[in-house]
Amino acid sequence: MPVISDDELNRRREEILEGARGCFAEHGYEGATVRRLEQATGKSRGAIFHHFGDKESLFLEIARQDAARQAQVVARDGLVEVMRDLLRHPERHDWLGTRLEIASMLRTDPDFRGKWEDQQAVLDQAVRERLVANARDGRLRDDVPVERVQMFLETVMDGFVSRLASGHPTEGLDEVLDMVEDAVRKK
Amino acid sequence: MPVISDDELNRRREEILEGARGCFAEHGYEGATVRRLEQATGKSRGAIFHHFGDKESLFLEIARQDAARQAQVVARDGLVEVMRDLLRHPERHDWLGTRLEIASMLRTDPDFRGKWEDQQAVLDQAVRERLVANARDGRLRDDVPVERVQMFLETVMDGFVSRLASGHPTEGLDEVLDMVEDAVRKK
Repeated sequence: MPVISDDELNRRREEILEGARGCFAEHGYEGATVRRLEQATGKSRGAIFHHFGDKESLFLEIARQDAARQAQVVARDGLVEVMRDLLRHPERHDWLGTRLEIASMLRTDPDFRGKWEDQQAVLDQAVRERLVANARDGRLRDDVPVERVQMFLETVMDGFVSRLASGHPTEGLDEVLDMVEDAVRKK
Repeated sequence: MPVISDDELNRRREEILEGARGCFAEHGYEGATVRRLEQATGKSRGAIFHHFGDKESLFLEIARQDAARQAQVVARDGLVEVMRDLLRHPERHDWLGTRLEIASMLRTDPDFRGKWEDQQAVLDQAVRERLVANARDGRLRDDVPVERVQMFLETVMDGFVSRLASGHPTEGLDEVLDMVEDAVRKK
């Protein structure tokens, strides 16, 4: 068996993630069968599950990549900027549909819920740190606890994901985000 | 064949809707098979589809009932009260999961989307009328258009539905709604 370099293994891993993301976006979580994942990634099921164990782990890894990227945006510009970024990239809205699809798994499958929350922790933490820093610098309203402001922003974010994933018109949502920023700012 | 009174027909119709709502809540839209709908309603498929034509029409009729009820609450107390009402009734959260499940149908099936929007129009209209009345009475912020305030509230509502359907903890969401009301109120 030929020796495969770490670089080559990483490249294959990224190819699987990229292809699988498109497959989940097109067919949904349930609809992304092993056969379709093979077609979308150009890899055999053996290769796919060598890297990711099972479909759930593969899906969670893609969600983890998203959370890590979004956490970077949050640290620099806040959660509202993550939403503005979603608005600017309609080609990513299909993928958001999976977020809605897994809601019932989150509600009914504690094991899946635990794994999902682990993957999202980096984003929650970034939002929290950003808000605490804003509060310290006097930019955040101080008449409600920081946790409440965070819950407000996360609820809006969930609504955003839901609207974009449903294909609602996006016109005017930028101004809605202005209202959201205004609602959390120190007056 | 015995003559069946209109009252009796209406009673059967309501029984089907009630049973089907529980079935959709438990199994989801896709998971609510004809067999399960028969079991949940205690009616034969013939009886069910005599009243509602097909599964999609049955589902849309339940959604229409919800929209009509919510429109009444909106007319009296506004959309935020609809959300407070959802918070007070966790036994209804399972049903909300279907809202997330149909998001991809809304995005990809223009025919379904059109029917869905027809069913929801009564609610949209009630929200709009309530906001216009509040604006006229000087209770609504007047630095942004009414349509923008409506979109803001509907985005929060979508986020609320998403959080409740995912089984997120609801503690603190009442205070989040205080922030939402504060964000649209005339200062």
